[in-house]
Amino acid sequence: MAKNIKNQAITSMEDDFAQWYTDVIKKAELVDYSSVRGCVILRPNGYRIWELFQQEVDKRFKETGHENVYMPMFIPESLLQKEADHVEGFAPEVAWVTRGGLEDLQERLAVRPTSETLFCEHYANIIQSHRDLPKLYNQWCSVVRWEKSTRPFLRTAEFLWQEGHTAHATEEEAVEETLKMLDLYEEVCKNLMALPVIKGKKTQKEKFAGAVDTYSIESLMHDGKALQSGTTHFFGDGFAKAFGIQFTDKNNELKHIFQTSWGLSTRLIGALIMVHGDNNGLVLPPKVAPTQVIIIPIAQHKDGVLDKAFEIKAKLSKFARVNVDDSDKQPGWKFNEAEVKGIPIRVEIGPRDIEENKAIIARRDTGEKFTVSLDDIEKEIEKYLEQIQKDMYEKALKHLNDNIRDAHTLDELEDIIKNKSGIVKAMWCGKEECETEIKDKLAVTSRNIPFDENAIGDKCVCCGEKADTVVYWAKAY
Amino acid sequence: MAKNIKNQAITSMEDDFAQWYTDVIKKAELVDYSSVRGCVILRPNGYRIWELFQQEVDKRFKETGHENVYMPMFIPESLLQKEADHVEGFAPEVAWVTRGGLEDLQERLAVRPTSETLFCEHYANIIQSHRDLPKLYNQWCSVVRWEKSTRPFLRTAEFLWQEGHTAHATEEEAVEETLKMLDLYEEVCKNLMALPVIKGKKTQKEKFAGAVDTYSIESLMHDGKALQSGTTHFFGDGFAKAFGIQFTDKNNELKHIFQTSWGLSTRLIGALIMVHGDNNGLVLPPKVAPTQVIIIPIAQHKDGVLDKAFEIKAKLSKFARVNVDDSDKQPGWKFNEAEVKGIPIRVEIGPRDIEENKAIIARRDTGEKFTVSLDDIEKEIEKYLEQIQKDMYEKALKHLNDNIRDAHTLDELEDIIKNKSGIVKAMWCGKEECETEIKDKLAVTSRNIPFDENAIGDKCVCCGEKADTVVYWAKAY
Repeated sequence: MAKNIKNQAITSMEDDFAQWYTDVIKKAELVDYSSVRGCVILRPNGYRIWELFQQEVDKRFKETGHENVYMPMFIPESLLQKEADHVEGFAPEVAWVTRGGLEDLQERLAVRPTSETLFCEHYANIIQSHRDLPKLYNQWCSVVRWEKSTRPFLRTAEFLWQEGHTAHATEEEAVEETLKMLDLYEEVCKNLMALPVIKGKKTQKEKFAGAVDTYSIESLMHDGKALQSGTTHFFGDGFAKAFGIQFTDKNNELKHIFQTSWGLSTRLIGALIMVHGDNNGLVLPPKVAPTQVIIIPIAQHKDGVLDKAFEIKAKLSKFARVNVDDSDKQPGWKFNEAEVKGIPIRVEIGPRDIEENKAIIARRDTGEKFTVSLDDIEKEIEKYLEQIQKDMYEKALKHLNDNIRDAHTLDELEDIIKNKSGIVKAMWCGKEECETEIKDKLAVTSRNIPFDENAIGDKCVCCGEKADTVVYWAKAY
Repeated sequence: MAKNIKNQAITSMEDDFAQWYTDVIKKAELVDYSSVRGCVILRPNGYRIWELFQQEVDKRFKETGHENVYMPMFIPESLLQKEADHVEGFAPEVAWVTRGGLEDLQERLAVRPTSETLFCEHYANIIQSHRDLPKLYNQWCSVVRWEKSTRPFLRTAEFLWQEGHTAHATEEEAVEETLKMLDLYEEVCKNLMALPVIKGKKTQKEKFAGAVDTYSIESLMHDGKALQSGTTHFFGDGFAKAFGIQFTDKNNELKHIFQTSWGLSTRLIGALIMVHGDNNGLVLPPKVAPTQVIIIPIAQHKDGVLDKAFEIKAKLSKFARVNVDDSDKQPGWKFNEAEVKGIPIRVEIGPRDIEENKAIIARRDTGEKFTVSLDDIEKEIEKYLEQIQKDMYEKALKHLNDNIRDAHTLDELEDIIKNKSGIVKAMWCGKEECETEIKDKLAVTSRNIPFDENAIGDKCVCCGEKADTVVYWAKAY
């Protein structure tokens, strides 16, 4: 039925993937544009996805001993400059406040692009003894990076994120934290967003400005491009030395702390759209769907129909986020709107259904329709919500696995990128020259070096010399 | 016992209230200072209070049909200037971004001091028909106001808040929303923060820049000063006209919308400290206490003591936020730390208590100590958490009521302000000259015009002419 009223306004993704993405975001009312260069408005449907995700992620942060704080949104230029690699990485994309009230500032202030320097300054203040360690802090905030181009969720001047910043007595503990948070990121992507990811270490060329090592989770979009979906960084004691963050250990010796940072952002909503969406619009996994079940009354003017719809809503609301669409539109339009917005389950209920004590439920992800008895509707909806979450992950996982291909030579790598896209697995000798050559020649980037991935040979895909490192390559957002 | 180890570092509030406030904030680890002018760091203890409050307030916003959104943190200068009164009110305290990346901006951007103008621009985009109304939006964010002086929570260049912005088809509906949110603010102050407030309408002189009417809740600090703790604004159709926000009503006529906005900020934490705190530190109402119960083991090296402490923690954690202080400090120090931080209930458990199957519990708000059987401890703690919340409110309410005094003449008003402080109730003729004269002469401000408050005469406290308006006056933060 929903197929009869096609949403003409959504470009098909096969015709123009970028336009499809923009259409979906606009039609599903996730975002509106503003007159502020590079900044978008997160509308209720868009913000609520972030909020639902955030609540669950924050719970996990707390369960693993992390505490939330809030740092100033400004960073004095001199503070930002304290760690050389870090400032070099961020300076080109900083927005600067130069005037406050009616006066020019003596020192200009960066609107935070990330808050390592502020956390370091604070840690230098509050950490004296090994008793003060570890510090496991996180903050939820927005950051600003002055980028040239704008794509909602993927690249905007301002975006929402969380940034974890931790301080440890030993290198081992800091490395452990870096990997633990990477695992946590993988888990929340899987269980909340239904997004499968590949985990690994970034090459030195692609690591974060100021980090010793950067790790990432990468997901694969429908169009075959990868999206960096989260990163965790091990800083060693580089920042601690630049900021003088020292503590007395158990033997009363003065030591520098070891640090980490890690972040997830609203970028993930971009991944959500591009991994699960289809030509009818958004497809949301139940766990982060603002509305999980939409009840659409058929012939709602008839006696008892709306009452029954709200009665079902009351029942389902005990465990799900449910709405009744009792607007004065035609059911077909309502179906269409629910589809565009990606609501996981649609329930149809009309006079004949009521007579027969049944309802029709339709899955957004597969389009399947089922008739269920009203006596069983709670159990059935609960079951389907779980099933949809699981199936969406499995489907995306299959797409990911089907699109990782081996390349043994540069020609093979080029062929896959040009003709099949997706992720290419290849051996690498470890030399930056080879990495740069591939990047420049094929316009792909090394996504990461996966953990425990079997070698597919012993020669570098670029120079042919001895290689024992597996690298994932892809075009990326 | 706790009394033996006085916290020397906290100045007594009778000696120096401002220093007492600063000491408490620092000792309770609510805040740290940063090198960013006017900006403070909210540490875990401080941020968690806000988070607990926010969760509950947000739940109420959603229950009353409000939806969260996120607007850009920047406002182009031309957009900020669209409503004349509004820009006049805010221009002197705006921080300006003039440079982005490596380029000077063509138009400078205000870091949002408040977001009316952004919401208006968005509403003009998305509201066409009466079917699109009402829009009941809210956002949680930080805002920046470039103030000269800094006092944590009370006056900082950046602070956290929520700002509600709603759009309605009729004036009546918008006024109703303005008053409904004021009631909601009163309720959350009472039930979460244990803060009694006085509700009323601001005078035209004190209203928000751009509003037709502003309403406020005001609370009374220990030092006799008032603190504006939340405001709601009715905008009429002024912003709608400035921004061209129109809709077609049911008769197909083009109309301007009516708007409101309303905000609560981290300022409320300042009120919390100054209403409930004492010379031993912070006193937190259980509802917003990061830790509600702290268990302090006595002779924790002895067999079974720590086990028992954690066993009690496990039991209480089912309904409360509980910690065990198993650090290597002396119990007296632990008592002291728990006091400074304002933890509502302390549980002491030692070898002899375990033998006798009992524990000692101590209330932070009253200092009372009770012996309870370990069999009843869950029930007892649950009861005391409720009782403390209630008692703290009642105590603060008594303080408020005891410190509202009537003045019939300027001399009486002056006498009360100088010798007793607190809030003064007086009649006002309604002329701004009188309001200004009182303000300039006595360094007090009109706090608000309470609802349904009985007149205490019929002559203006200032000019002696006919008056039928009751005004609350006070020195204020």
